[in-house]
Amino acid sequence: MIGKVFLIGAGPGDPELMTLRAVRMLEAADVVVYDKLVSAEILAMSPPGARMISVGKSPKCHPVTQDGINDILLREALDGHTVARLKGGDPMIFGRGSEEAAHLMQHGVAVEYAPGITAAQGASCSTGVPLTHRGLATGVQYVTGHRQADNVLDLDWKRLANPNTTLVVYMGVANIAQIAIGLMTENLPGSTPVMAVAKATTPDEKRLLSRLDHIAQDIREAEFSAPVLFIIGRVVSLYAQNPVSELAPEIQQVIAHG
Amino acid sequence: MIGKVFLIGAGPGDPELMTLRAVRMLEAADVVVYDKLVSAEILAMSPPGARMISVGKSPKCHPVTQDGINDILLREALDGHTVARLKGGDPMIFGRGSEEAAHLMQHGVAVEYAPGITAAQGASCSTGVPLTHRGLATGVQYVTGHRQADNVLDLDWKRLANPNTTLVVYMGVANIAQIAIGLMTENLPGSTPVMAVAKATTPDEKRLLSRLDHIAQDIREAEFSAPVLFIIGRVVSLYAQNPVSELAPEIQQVIAHG
Repeated sequence: MIGKVFLIGAGPGDPELMTLRAVRMLEAADVVVYDKLVSAEILAMSPPGARMISVGKSPKCHPVTQDGINDILLREALDGHTVARLKGGDPMIFGRGSEEAAHLMQHGVAVEYAPGITAAQGASCSTGVPLTHRGLATGVQYVTGHRQADNVLDLDWKRLANPNTTLVVYMGVANIAQIAIGLMTENLPGSTPVMAVAKATTPDEKRLLSRLDHIAQDIREAEFSAPVLFIIGRVVSLYAQNPVSELAPEIQQVIAHG
Repeated sequence: MIGKVFLIGAGPGDPELMTLRAVRMLEAADVVVYDKLVSAEILAMSPPGARMISVGKSPKCHPVTQDGINDILLREALDGHTVARLKGGDPMIFGRGSEEAAHLMQHGVAVEYAPGITAAQGASCSTGVPLTHRGLATGVQYVTGHRQADNVLDLDWKRLANPNTTLVVYMGVANIAQIAIGLMTENLPGSTPVMAVAKATTPDEKRLLSRLDHIAQDIREAEFSAPVLFIIGRVVSLYAQNPVSELAPEIQQVIAHG
């Protein structure tokens, strides 16, 4: 009897933002393979006795390669285990869940998914800044600002520089200066409001309110630690107008150029 | 004592895709104000004795206007109730949650959010088609294909026609012919794969695999009922290669031009 793999989105950080399905799948596992971004509170929801395998991916630090992760998942499933593959956010959005699934299915291992609240949604509900809003943003776009070593950041600035759409940049803190210049070169106004949110939905959440022509300098001075998400667009203007009623006292908020 | 309002994303359909927070907030409510897209199974999770108020929004049928909904929420909160405002998907993505929140906060009513799995994520995890995938899509964009009565569909085809990004169209079934033409006019190939998913993650889910130059005709013939979501882009090519292992027998699948 071969086992199976649950590809589980653990959400943005707060364990309460996991779905019921994610919890059910995690509780059924006898092996848990998890990324660095998954919190201790969420790992603690694993069944007692489950074998825990860290594959510790974080920016610039991949102690286990993607091929190595694929092999671990396959081996554990072929050994007959029920494997929970826990990823931050949603496995289908910048999560490489579909690469792992393809590898497993090619070898006859069944895969089931639990979607997860992605960081953009977590930051949105935490800050009260919507991703779409009538009159301010007719849609929303997610891109990653991370580039592979030795590669240039290959983004289509003309298509991204849309004043009618909210742009959310994941993993962009190292390249935000280049991103801001790229967008401004394609005529997105320097006054476009930007909110950076670090560790959204966790007790260590930090927020920085700025604008496109100042965000690179402001984020450097704020020294936020990863993961940092940037929400760029007119929806951010609603933050100052309508702050979420109770700002938890531990949340650090920097209003630099809002 | 005035009450408060929980703006809750109920997710794409399957009750198991609600977050723990959404369930906790719903269970704390004494008034539940819900949209038509919220299923009976989810409404059944409300506390016994909660007063249930349908505001029944559906395409072309808004028995209660947005102003009317705002007024109901405000009145119930000012009367001291804990109000659960249940919306399909995520309140911050095409959900008008931020409009309701602004109205409430202007009148001193506290608002708390529970994000929800949005339809794109539900369809992705249900079908196994990722929203991003290395080499196929570096990002994902959500737009609505719905237009206000007497308005033209005001979308920026040049910016949307990006072969390196997954485009997800919500509420687009009535205008998919115009959307496909707009994208092809801006050089998105007619051979671009498209997947339409109706009622994703529910027992009535239906899937149609087609391509950009045939989707309008194919979806008309398939007669899917709302809500229908379109996933447009190269990621859809993974569907035929790697079908999710067990296709539930009740899911109707039409492969028209895949």
